[in-house]
Amino acid sequence: MAQTLIHLPARHSTAFRLAKGQTVRIVNTHGGQVVDTWAFADGDMNEFMSMEHSRVHMGRVNPIAGSVLLSNARRPMLRMLADTSGGVHDTLLAACDIHRYRMLGCTGYHRNCTDNLQEALGRLRLSAPETPSPLNLFQNSAIKPDGALVIEPPVAPPGSHVTLGAELGIIIVFSACPQDMAPTNGADMTPKDVELIVS
Amino acid sequence: MAQTLIHLPARHSTAFRLAKGQTVRIVNTHGGQVVDTWAFADGDMNEFMSMEHSRVHMGRVNPIAGSVLLSNARRPMLRMLADTSGGVHDTLLAACDIHRYRMLGCTGYHRNCTDNLQEALGRLRLSAPETPSPLNLFQNSAIKPDGALVIEPPVAPPGSHVTLGAELGIIIVFSACPQDMAPTNGADMTPKDVELIVS
Repeated sequence: MAQTLIHLPARHSTAFRLAKGQTVRIVNTHGGQVVDTWAFADGDMNEFMSMEHSRVHMGRVNPIAGSVLLSNARRPMLRMLADTSGGVHDTLLAACDIHRYRMLGCTGYHRNCTDNLQEALGRLRLSAPETPSPLNLFQNSAIKPDGALVIEPPVAPPGSHVTLGAELGIIIVFSACPQDMAPTNGADMTPKDVELIVS
Repeated sequence: MAQTLIHLPARHSTAFRLAKGQTVRIVNTHGGQVVDTWAFADGDMNEFMSMEHSRVHMGRVNPIAGSVLLSNARRPMLRMLADTSGGVHDTLLAACDIHRYRMLGCTGYHRNCTDNLQEALGRLRLSAPETPSPLNLFQNSAIKPDGALVIEPPVAPPGSHVTLGAELGIIIVFSACPQDMAPTNGADMTPKDVELIVS
């Protein structure tokens, strides 16, 4: 099957259509980079992939190979087909936004996943009605026994990848997280490029 | 300060305004009843309490006494002032809806927290732009070391309670969860009434 390679630069985002049955491989080229991921039903931006509905269906906090991610109408949207990254992904934390960077001490504008979502959709002349809670691929949010939640550097090695398959026609959006004020994207706090392979 | 007592029947919901500084005590009268809770900024239904933003701010999966819950614009909305229920609450699972009951085998209409949210807001001539992920007071969603998520009976004893304080002017909504096809509301799978005391 024909493949399309998309280079996604650090701190930026992309959005494209996936037909039912198509797949996308997200390659963590340099390792340790978090990729915020959203999906919307093609034709209805009010139906989107929902972490809270997916957790009920998966019976898990985090997806593993075989897990199916649901929309807010509980329809299957994406299936995690394969994962060579170590199996650490986050469904708990909001996308970073201007408010988050301000709270971290940033005084000017800082690129962020929330604006990246709308920027990528805008290129398709679409917009999201709100910012759904993202699937944060490769993000390492450790849950401690007492309920504490700690952002630790990702474990995904260079070249490791996750493959997602579309269970219905969707708009999929990826943001290579711009976070450089916390170890979200590694102890070096340096966002990096990733590659997407669409089949 | 004057108090208002609101009786919330099992399977039903209520919505009302809280001014900044007002508090509401949610009393688990019979024990074990889950209460789905939402908050919206008074005057802007697009700004609502967000579990994903709150988890980042709390550095926790679940709120404890002292925790502040944020809106999707990261503004403080509610503070958990006191908790005598055992400290077990859920921020991970979607509100139940017609799709969930259908998936559990229900063929007719089943009351659910998603419709309860809109029903309660409708009495104030308001509507929610979507169903935010709720704060599920008293819900016992146990996270296992392997990431599995299991719904267990609540631990909240009869008469135990949580007190929430408004950090800004909000519309607050409570739904006494109608779930009777899973042990969400206790091993007897029987939804029960709760009481709300507004001060």
